[in-house]
Amino acid sequence: MDFELPPSLGIYGNEKIAKDVLSRIWGKRGVFTCTVANTRTSTIPGISDAGDTPELTLFTGPADAELLINRKTTCMKGIPINPGGIPTPATLTLAALDLSDMPCFIVNGGCSVVPYVPFFDMGGECGDYITTGKAVKNVRTEFEKGMMLGRMLAKSYDFVVISESCAGGTTTALAVMTAMGVLKENIVSSSSPNNPRELKSKTVAEALKAAGIEPGDLADDPLRAIECVGDPMMPANIGIVCGAAPHVPVIIGGGTQMGAIIASVIRLHPELIGNIVQGTTRWLMGDVNSNMRRIIDTITPDVPAVYVNVDYSGSPYEGLQAYEWGYIKEGAGCGGSSVGAIAMSAGEITADALEARVEEIYREIMGDALAP
Amino acid sequence: MDFELPPSLGIYGNEKIAKDVLSRIWGKRGVFTCTVANTRTSTIPGISDAGDTPELTLFTGPADAELLINRKTTCMKGIPINPGGIPTPATLTLAALDLSDMPCFIVNGGCSVVPYVPFFDMGGECGDYITTGKAVKNVRTEFEKGMMLGRMLAKSYDFVVISESCAGGTTTALAVMTAMGVLKENIVSSSSPNNPRELKSKTVAEALKAAGIEPGDLADDPLRAIECVGDPMMPANIGIVCGAAPHVPVIIGGGTQMGAIIASVIRLHPELIGNIVQGTTRWLMGDVNSNMRRIIDTITPDVPAVYVNVDYSGSPYEGLQAYEWGYIKEGAGCGGSSVGAIAMSAGEITADALEARVEEIYREIMGDALAP
Repeated sequence: MDFELPPSLGIYGNEKIAKDVLSRIWGKRGVFTCTVANTRTSTIPGISDAGDTPELTLFTGPADAELLINRKTTCMKGIPINPGGIPTPATLTLAALDLSDMPCFIVNGGCSVVPYVPFFDMGGECGDYITTGKAVKNVRTEFEKGMMLGRMLAKSYDFVVISESCAGGTTTALAVMTAMGVLKENIVSSSSPNNPRELKSKTVAEALKAAGIEPGDLADDPLRAIECVGDPMMPANIGIVCGAAPHVPVIIGGGTQMGAIIASVIRLHPELIGNIVQGTTRWLMGDVNSNMRRIIDTITPDVPAVYVNVDYSGSPYEGLQAYEWGYIKEGAGCGGSSVGAIAMSAGEITADALEARVEEIYREIMGDALAP
Repeated sequence: MDFELPPSLGIYGNEKIAKDVLSRIWGKRGVFTCTVANTRTSTIPGISDAGDTPELTLFTGPADAELLINRKTTCMKGIPINPGGIPTPATLTLAALDLSDMPCFIVNGGCSVVPYVPFFDMGGECGDYITTGKAVKNVRTEFEKGMMLGRMLAKSYDFVVISESCAGGTTTALAVMTAMGVLKENIVSSSSPNNPRELKSKTVAEALKAAGIEPGDLADDPLRAIECVGDPMMPANIGIVCGAAPHVPVIIGGGTQMGAIIASVIRLHPELIGNIVQGTTRWLMGDVNSNMRRIIDTITPDVPAVYVNVDYSGSPYEGLQAYEWGYIKEGAGCGGSSVGAIAMSAGEITADALEARVEEIYREIMGDALAP
């Protein structure tokens, strides 16, 4: 294999496929999309840390969308933070977009809080509690519109990066992967180092019971699994991948949430293997409280992860250092956009450069609110 | 001036500006957008011919959107036609997109019939009868989201083509241009050779009266004029132009409807003159029942028209020949996309090639319904 991986990137899974995909997008024009959505599941107290309070988790996705397009938020004051003031990973996404000049489009999977930006509407609605067993409406519509959007983007760009910002999304992902029989235990991530594993497992068990399904029952019907126990980010993103990947390589940006996307895509279109990689961060790959590596091994190492070796331990800001302590780790496509930016620049953009730009953006966005 | 205009294109207005803009987009990457919207004004019997019946005019914009993305319609059976079976000008738009590979995005300005495609949502709603004097809601929101979208597209592409499909749009344009004092008489076009001029004038007079404004009262406030007597296509498109044109050249694709857009843009941002041209068709420029030339002279020749010299008189199909008899003439960005396609290909695409492709598309879409 001729392709030489720069030190800013790492690979887990099928290295041959990862390097082949990277070599085909190296120095090429990519496009970044972030699908934002809400599921009421995120407001179950304790389940999501992607917001200062359970109710605020509904603002996180929409506010990330506003931040990515306008560098400021309209639907809420300030930027999305985790309890303790740790800034949204969209700060890293912005750094990647800035340095690479990669275009960015927002996809609305279904939000209760409508972001104040132009977004691709997919006909989705805010998702319900998965414990209803009827979590997502309009799944087929979102999937079909996603296919169209994927084809449209593949026409304009050499590769496509998809991603998500949907609080509560690891719980819904666990539910879908359980319904599909892909996961037999709870190894999904959390934006908190104190992963509320028991609460998530209990919620997922309740959800499957309400839907009247046993683990593995929906192995062959991922869209039905989403309808029962998923979230509205999923059908849009699965559609985009299925529409784009027959034509151009696709980077699936995100953490364990994206396990549900990958498992669904390769169930519906196994022939897309070889043209898809996951794009994520070193933080997520190294997380001791979840297990992205095992999720990849379980689904298939043939959709390998390419991760960016960002390291905030040298940052002067506690809010950023916290990423090294197990907070956040992924989200708003920060890993996928970083991998995409590095590829677009044929390796000229480095993890160091991304870190430096994140600090500038953090200062710029926080302004006086940032303690020196 | 070094730039040599190919025979497939013509210019009306400031030739220096037109050639300067063309020279800067020659062989460059463009993007095409079509803003679809509805105004109940189109259902006033006799006012719009863009649909087989007054009620069907509401389907024309959304169906054009579906045709542009999927080459088939979902919201209605068949393709939009004028009475007598004359096919939508989207057939020419498709030919231009096909030959140039120019990407195409749909913008939803505000539809009562939601097109089954992924579209940019601008927060708009279906427009009311202009005779209410309160025709459009959320004008400021649509304008601001349009600005964002314009900036986003300018980041990705070397030039931007905007356009519209909104039945009833020449009447609303006449109303807005009258409220702004730009037009003192009714010289807007119609998709029928029997332009219902009196009915349009009467409707506009009623609309201004209902809004409590005299002609010219809103010379300095185009967004207010739209709110009173315009349609929801307008604020989205004005925003896109204002957001994109500071960065890249913009082709305003369309006929006399676009007079309202051009007048509004240069009232809000006169400094954009020099980076904007209108893109349209020979049919529209030569129409004896309207007067695009005089509208351009009145607004300013410094936003010149570049028109494509398409000619369907040699077509074997009556539905296409009808374009030569004064039917349709413009719509769904057929002129703007043709000019954009010719520019993108640095003149390699010709009017002849566009005509040949339109016939293929017409056959393909109509299938057995097309009499040989």
